[in-house]
Amino acid sequence: MSLLSQRHMLGLADYSAEDIQTILDTALQMRDILDRPVKKVPTLRGVTVVNLFLENSTRTRTSFELAEKRLSADTLNFSASGSALSKGETMLDTALNIEAMKVDVVVMRHKSPGSPHFLARHLESIIINAGDGRHEHPTQGLLDMLTLRDKFGTLKGLRVALVGDILHSRVAMSNIIGLKKMGAEVIICGPATLIPRGLANMGVEITHSLDDVIQKADALNILRIQLERQSSGLFPSLREYHKYFGVNRVRLEKAATPLTILHPGPINRGVEITSDVADSEHSVILQQVTNGVAVRMAVLYLLAGGRAETSDSKAA
Amino acid sequence: MSLLSQRHMLGLADYSAEDIQTILDTALQMRDILDRPVKKVPTLRGVTVVNLFLENSTRTRTSFELAEKRLSADTLNFSASGSALSKGETMLDTALNIEAMKVDVVVMRHKSPGSPHFLARHLESIIINAGDGRHEHPTQGLLDMLTLRDKFGTLKGLRVALVGDILHSRVAMSNIIGLKKMGAEVIICGPATLIPRGLANMGVEITHSLDDVIQKADALNILRIQLERQSSGLFPSLREYHKYFGVNRVRLEKAATPLTILHPGPINRGVEITSDVADSEHSVILQQVTNGVAVRMAVLYLLAGGRAETSDSKAA
Amino acid sequence: MSLLSQRHMLGLADYSAEDIQTILDTALQMRDILDRPVKKVPTLRGVTVVNLFLENSTRTRTSFELAEKRLSADTLNFSASGSALSKGETMLDTALNIEAMKVDVVVMRHKSPGSPHFLARHLESIIINAGDGRHEHPTQGLLDMLTLRDKFGTLKGLRVALVGDILHSRVAMSNIIGLKKMGAEVIICGPATLIPRGLANMGVEITHSLDDVIQKADALNILRIQLERQSSGLFPSLREYHKYFGVNRVRLEKAATPLTILHPGPINRGVEITSDVADSEHSVILQQVTNGVAVRMAVLYLLAGGRAETSDSKAA
Repeated sequence: MSLLSQRHMLGLADYSAEDIQTILDTALQMRDILDRPVKKVPTLRGVTVVNLFLENSTRTRTSFELAEKRLSADTLNFSASGSALSKGETMLDTALNIEAMKVDVVVMRHKSPGSPHFLARHLESIIINAGDGRHEHPTQGLLDMLTLRDKFGTLKGLRVALVGDILHSRVAMSNIIGLKKMGAEVIICGPATLIPRGLANMGVEITHSLDDVIQKADALNILRIQLERQSSGLFPSLREYHKYFGVNRVRLEKAATPLTILHPGPINRGVEITSDVADSEHSVILQQVTNGVAVRMAVLYLLAGGRAETSDSKAA
Repeated sequence: MSLLSQRHMLGLADYSAEDIQTILDTALQMRDILDRPVKKVPTLRGVTVVNLFLENSTRTRTSFELAEKRLSADTLNFSASGSALSKGETMLDTALNIEAMKVDVVVMRHKSPGSPHFLARHLESIIINAGDGRHEHPTQGLLDMLTLRDKFGTLKGLRVALVGDILHSRVAMSNIIGLKKMGAEVIICGPATLIPRGLANMGVEITHSLDDVIQKADALNILRIQLERQSSGLFPSLREYHKYFGVNRVRLEKAATPLTILHPGPINRGVEITSDVADSEHSVILQQVTNGVAVRMAVLYLLAGGRAETSDSKAA
Repeated sequence: MSLLSQRHMLGLADYSAEDIQTILDTALQMRDILDRPVKKVPTLRGVTVVNLFLENSTRTRTSFELAEKRLSADTLNFSASGSALSKGETMLDTALNIEAMKVDVVVMRHKSPGSPHFLARHLESIIINAGDGRHEHPTQGLLDMLTLRDKFGTLKGLRVALVGDILHSRVAMSNIIGLKKMGAEVIICGPATLIPRGLANMGVEITHSLDDVIQKADALNILRIQLERQSSGLFPSLREYHKYFGVNRVRLEKAATPLTILHPGPINRGVEITSDVADSEHSVILQQVTNGVAVRMAVLYLLAGGRAETSDSKAA
């Protein structure tokens, strides 16, 4: 039986505050394992996890792969290039084929929102969403929350600002959903063209002034400007973007108390963040990376750790 | 000592009915392991298997890799791109180099028929053919036979039709050879341009009428039309191919008893097979995939499981 | 605590004769493991090794990967393509991110000399240089020395000639440095355009006559001519190169006692070496490959085996 109320991890939208609490608490125990010389436990021995990354992401795949190996799972990477998908097979056929090889967990990244939900409806395996288009990236949301909780002790009442390209960001979506559930206040800051319509309905504050945000927030989660979007016309130029929304030390010094700085990476030094901010003592960017492995270990353990008991019951 | 009469698995042509029986029986035991929560046995611990795929095949490589990991072998993937082969090294030098790293088993896919035989002559390692050009794909033949035996209890006297592109199909060759050895009758059906001359000498029945085959056969193994061969002039168009050789429900309903449907995958829905056939209750396509892992575990175990005893005898 | 006087393996230049001796002796024990049916020891269980190959090399990566797996380390391959590096991240940020995932050892290949030294200054992980531009390739130097010691019993007083493209060769550099430390005499032979100025200062003899070298040396380490350098103007043509510096049987027969032949591979048959030499009984080319795995196991064990004790001390 899963130790959470959900069978899959498709998005934080499905998860209760209680479940999120359980995951973050479990991640702390996992992080203890990461600090040991022998960073390995036998929890998922004989469990097979397939990393089905149909969109490239070395960083997230590596984090999942390390989490899986440290739980002693058998792990297999499956990417789009060279696969049957490139020979015209449907995504569902590919997934059913992988499952027929007796796979327990599928960690999936895909450019289309809802792809992991589609798999969850048709497969018996446990599905973990590793990012589906602009929709959600739940383990990133969880690792950001763990990092904030580490720093501030609680998420309740915390004022967290998300800065930058909100429109294309599943990281932003999972942060908004998760942080709101845990009682934090969320402020959104970016150019109007990079903030999706209807966001106000999610109970967040929206502003276009970075200086304003710096006065109010406890922490900034600075989103990556995807350089390949420069020519999209959504912002005039990197130089212009940096002028209005780039986070640098001079701007941050106007805050009453120093802000904690998060960034999902990879960072563009000199664009959305300057080096003096990224490398400062208030930056928790590398702690996010460590927490990413711990959170993924926790999610895998909580969803698949009880696999032994339920392996023959096709529960929804 | 190998538990089979052969040291390598180069093709089913070398194997006796008795050996094939042993492999299929062993595969059943391996399939039991796949149904356990802990899908892993220590049988090949410390044995190194290299997957030398000099022609791309995510599906077959994945199946072998999972088989190897579930037997606790150390496994290593070696593909052509980026390797010394692309720097002008000969295939034999590459293979000798891999072997010098103290490898026990080489699973090889190559576009040239006979490549695994060539390696077997020069290397001390156990060689498993994972497909050599149009020649053989023995583990595919074995998994097809296991799936048929699961369904019908025996292969003896079974009438199995292979439908489609026989000319380019190593799957067809290994099926013909294996099925004949096990006492099945084999019917070949496809356009004349896609049936190699001389096939009649192999003791098979040849027909160009799919409707005729549907009247006679117990099972259809529908081969993949490789879309990249469309412009080869061997058949007029996909639409035309589908009209004469596409297997659909209407056609199948003319059979006295429902035919069992196999396909080596990946399937082209609407070309050689329609969705109502591929997804019907008579389709065993996904069972084939599961059996693929089980058969490969069986072959690896039978060939390399006794490696401990023979590791220093260079037997032919 | 590391069992060597160094924390990293950046180049043989940092290593004492005593340390090199320790590595070669340990490699012999590792080679014994490679000859067992179960080629695996639990020495590095729970230790994570990342193979950060930012320049392609299937051969060296495979050798390291096998060494890591046989010591039971968790191993992860990280290449440049598809990674954050290709999204504009700096190499240091990539490395810091990998380290933040709690990695113990980074095995690095990079086209720029000094890259592993740069990482060693900024990361807490143990860094092993797997080739940095023209600078060093220390484990190759070590495996060449082990192979020579196997053959001759000692390196002291041995006359070893390096033949070919010295200019672009990190293999040559690590050989010169290591052999000199161990008391061997080193002779350099190649076209003047492929021998770097200033080499004479390293205490080696330089000659442009292969026939001369064959009279004097005990062993030839024949370097690879990188075919992609043909158009660089450094030598007139492959045919011309072969005429003056290609090692063939006729030439070798002029030696008083048969010379031992080494080559780091992949070999270009008919260019720098002919088949009758490469495949002769005096060739130890495949022993070099076996020794490569053994030497890398030794280096990993000696540097990271005591990781348990030092994991929380950031020693320089």
